[in-house]
Amino acid sequence: MKAIALLGGPSYLWPNNFLQVQNKKVIGVDRGTLFLLEKNIVPDIAIGDFDSLKKSELQLVEKKVKDIHYSSPIKDLTDAELMLKVAFDDYQIEYLDIYGATGGRLDHFLANLFAVLKPEFNQYAEKISLLDIQNRIDFYNAGTHIVPNIEGYKYVGVIPLNKVDNLTISHARYDLNNFSTMYPISFASNEFLPNTKDLKISFTTGTVAIIYSKDINRFANI
Amino acid sequence: MKAIALLGGPSYLWPNNFLQVQNKKVIGVDRGTLFLLEKNIVPDIAIGDFDSLKKSELQLVEKKVKDIHYSSPIKDLTDAELMLKVAFDDYQIEYLDIYGATGGRLDHFLANLFAVLKPEFNQYAEKISLLDIQNRIDFYNAGTHIVPNIEGYKYVGVIPLNKVDNLTISHARYDLNNFSTMYPISFASNEFLPNTKDLKISFTTGTVAIIYSKDINRFANI
Repeated sequence: MKAIALLGGPSYLWPNNFLQVQNKKVIGVDRGTLFLLEKNIVPDIAIGDFDSLKKSELQLVEKKVKDIHYSSPIKDLTDAELMLKVAFDDYQIEYLDIYGATGGRLDHFLANLFAVLKPEFNQYAEKISLLDIQNRIDFYNAGTHIVPNIEGYKYVGVIPLNKVDNLTISHARYDLNNFSTMYPISFASNEFLPNTKDLKISFTTGTVAIIYSKDINRFANI
Repeated sequence: MKAIALLGGPSYLWPNNFLQVQNKKVIGVDRGTLFLLEKNIVPDIAIGDFDSLKKSELQLVEKKVKDIHYSSPIKDLTDAELMLKVAFDDYQIEYLDIYGATGGRLDHFLANLFAVLKPEFNQYAEKISLLDIQNRIDFYNAGTHIVPNIEGYKYVGVIPLNKVDNLTISHARYDLNNFSTMYPISFASNEFLPNTKDLKISFTTGTVAIIYSKDINRFANI
């Protein structure tokens, strides 16, 4: 079964009509749980320390949600990491779309982005996407991968997140041959070739994020 | 001399009243140049390929700005990286505050965040801050550092960005002792102890980002 998780990041970064929850497990993380209830969606699972919620808000969560996992404010795992454990270990989720993980406080965003680098979560990397109104982040571990062209995005960034060896990008606007790095680096603004369905990446060590993105003007003049 | 640079990230993430440009060099990067001109600030320096500007907009930039550095769309350096070279090598800037570097397209944000990990830019790491409406990102290279408590921020995240050895955090709400990592990790939501002016970090290898942040509700209901 697929799942959708909503974290507590700013709601102005939510994609339009992203709450398509039919036949999916729905997971609320911390304040994301409340956002879901406000949208009249009762999450199957709620996770968090909920310390940012008012007492009445927490009572609502506890009344509505059947499976609640409480995290400790002083903890080894972030709420998002505990969510990954519950989704994949307890519920055997096949694929997880995560919203509300970007923007806002950047220490939070980076914790979400880097979670898949930890040994205990790396096995889930290829089953997770982080999505917002103008980005979709997928992850790949070492190997050879066909990266699909996804409609609606103009750019495809290729971002080694840790020590990556022998990275080759082919069938893209800007190819790359056998690149190795000891530190993270963002190859931004690459593109699919016109009228192609995919490009290819291969590398022998590490984890690479693929960031699909587009330009939007929605907030240019707020 | 200090400097302020404005990149092309979304304007809704600009801090309030951030364009305090007295006695500072002002640098516009790509569309950031146009944003400055729209605010009646003529940048001293403009950098970019300007390929997202209309012809009339580019003409305005060329008429107003005295020192323009054109980058190639196909290039080894990003516009932001070329900006660092110009600021520190050509103008010997003492300290650089960078706005418009966060949010929007996350391949761009990560290119800005990871720039200081490249050997040619690492020497500037401790002279750069990336700032937006709820975050301030500073960088430290290996050594022992006093991290100042800055008014207006509640949280202080400590984020090893590459291979970091023997990281110790002391005098913080959550101390850390002699932690080493091969990959980036975000220790989010740490805090200064009440009524203290600083905390201390030390590490023997790598580069660590310090992310000051705060919660804001400004966009909660857009």
